[in-house]
Amino acid sequence: MFTGLSAFPLTPLDDDRFDERAYAGLITRLVEAGVDSVGALGSTGSYAYLDRDERRRVARTAVQHADGTPVVVGIGALRTSHVRALAQDAQQVGASAVLLAPVSYQPLTDEDVFALYESVTAELSVPLVVYDNPGTTRFTFSTELYARVAALPSVAAIKIPPVPADPAAARERVAAVRAAVPDHVSIGVSGDGVAATGLNAGCRAWFSVVGGTLPATALPLARAALGGDAEGAVAESERLRPLWEMFAAHGSLRVSAAIAEHLGLVAPRCLPHPILGLPAAERERVARVVGELGLA
Amino acid sequence: MFTGLSAFPLTPLDDDRFDERAYAGLITRLVEAGVDSVGALGSTGSYAYLDRDERRRVARTAVQHADGTPVVVGIGALRTSHVRALAQDAQQVGASAVLLAPVSYQPLTDEDVFALYESVTAELSVPLVVYDNPGTTRFTFSTELYARVAALPSVAAIKIPPVPADPAAARERVAAVRAAVPDHVSIGVSGDGVAATGLNAGCRAWFSVVGGTLPATALPLARAALGGDAEGAVAESERLRPLWEMFAAHGSLRVSAAIAEHLGLVAPRCLPHPILGLPAAERERVARVVGELGLA
Repeated sequence: MFTGLSAFPLTPLDDDRFDERAYAGLITRLVEAGVDSVGALGSTGSYAYLDRDERRRVARTAVQHADGTPVVVGIGALRTSHVRALAQDAQQVGASAVLLAPVSYQPLTDEDVFALYESVTAELSVPLVVYDNPGTTRFTFSTELYARVAALPSVAAIKIPPVPADPAAARERVAAVRAAVPDHVSIGVSGDGVAATGLNAGCRAWFSVVGGTLPATALPLARAALGGDAEGAVAESERLRPLWEMFAAHGSLRVSAAIAEHLGLVAPRCLPHPILGLPAAERERVARVVGELGLA
Repeated sequence: MFTGLSAFPLTPLDDDRFDERAYAGLITRLVEAGVDSVGALGSTGSYAYLDRDERRRVARTAVQHADGTPVVVGIGALRTSHVRALAQDAQQVGASAVLLAPVSYQPLTDEDVFALYESVTAELSVPLVVYDNPGTTRFTFSTELYARVAALPSVAAIKIPPVPADPAAARERVAAVRAAVPDHVSIGVSGDGVAATGLNAGCRAWFSVVGGTLPATALPLARAALGGDAEGAVAESERLRPLWEMFAAHGSLRVSAAIAEHLGLVAPRCLPHPILGLPAAERERVARVVGELGLA
């Protein structure tokens, strides 16, 4: 489950309500493309913006339409008791695994974060992915904390932040994490623009934003890298550079939503407010890049 | 309402449940000390960690025990529709004003934040305090954005982040904000360690963490500064330096909780997990400082 392409779809809203039909369509699209797992309610799936009932519905819809493809469900929340309730909900609707980021409002200490994972894993029946995303959680894991958390029961993978763009530095970084955590814990890369670099550096999974909306675009890169064709993966990533540049400028969430809206996969303005999505000029650029790269 | 000491109490939990009795005691303590307003459900009141029902109960309890002292209620949340619902709840239970920070998970743009305030103020019957707290929201207001937001209906005050410690730089900063926003919009300082500096630099209110737990400690400083005794305010602030140093090291929330726990005002471990609160050695230091400064 923690090898290959883990695709993170949007959770589309329509007039501030969960658009279940569009979401089912996104899940079906991923499964038909052949992704290795579906990451429901990741950052791209706006988990932090949805209430408990919505999150249960989203997770249930993902599992129902995944047709046997493993579904990893995000359970992050600010309060430990809420995380535990979300973990129960995810397991009840059939999640194959859960994904947990140390979401913060007040900055968290290492001890706070360790205790969070300890509390949640103590009552978990499915594997857990440690989700390290300092750009949204504002918490930065040390390699030592990876080691402590990875030794907890049920921890099966770590979703690490973007690796350095330099291949040697990326190899060094992945090797350092690899050396710190038990062998059974998979290391997966995030940050689509450096996915090829991360996979070539030894990550076994790609937790992918672009793969959640454009799975046929992401799969060749993942297959090349994990099949040993490092140069092919880099070439595929280079081809997609205009996309990575837009991700860097506006965030992958806003760009993915604009792509999905442009392709008619979701209703217009599918993101939870206050996130307005891209302005008109940037939407035109997205449409142009989608056309030029043949991403539709 | 937006002049003087606005005191922000903790929202104490007991075994992960809102401790209404302890909270009522904290509110009574503030009112008896004579604070100018109560800031319920600020960052110190853990608003971001509580669900809608809890927040309604907290706001109602604050108003019930405030005995006519104005209560400002925090309505921040990640999603605009949730903020609007919380604004309705706060008004229904009798809040005198609301306080809104642009809470973020995905980093927000200026347009996102402006649209949030525009949407919320469009249907508001009480004044709104713009809450600028980059340390928890990770959003930084420009002075231009202050000006745009302050021109919206119902905006009555801005809670600015800590001013520079240098008095001249602080005066320059407050003057810049003052020049950018309409005259009827009050500017209040936060960051207890520079409260005297901020008040002496022209802020008319102090949105105070320490004032929420130790009102009798905060009031002399506020009264001195706002009464024109700048030197007296500075001397009072200097006296409290050991407290500011602990705030800087551990965050004002954890230290305030430790003080309230030490004084028996709240149950032990009153903060929402995963926030563990101070380790034992630091709690001893807190107790020592409370004793030495005569803060009880």
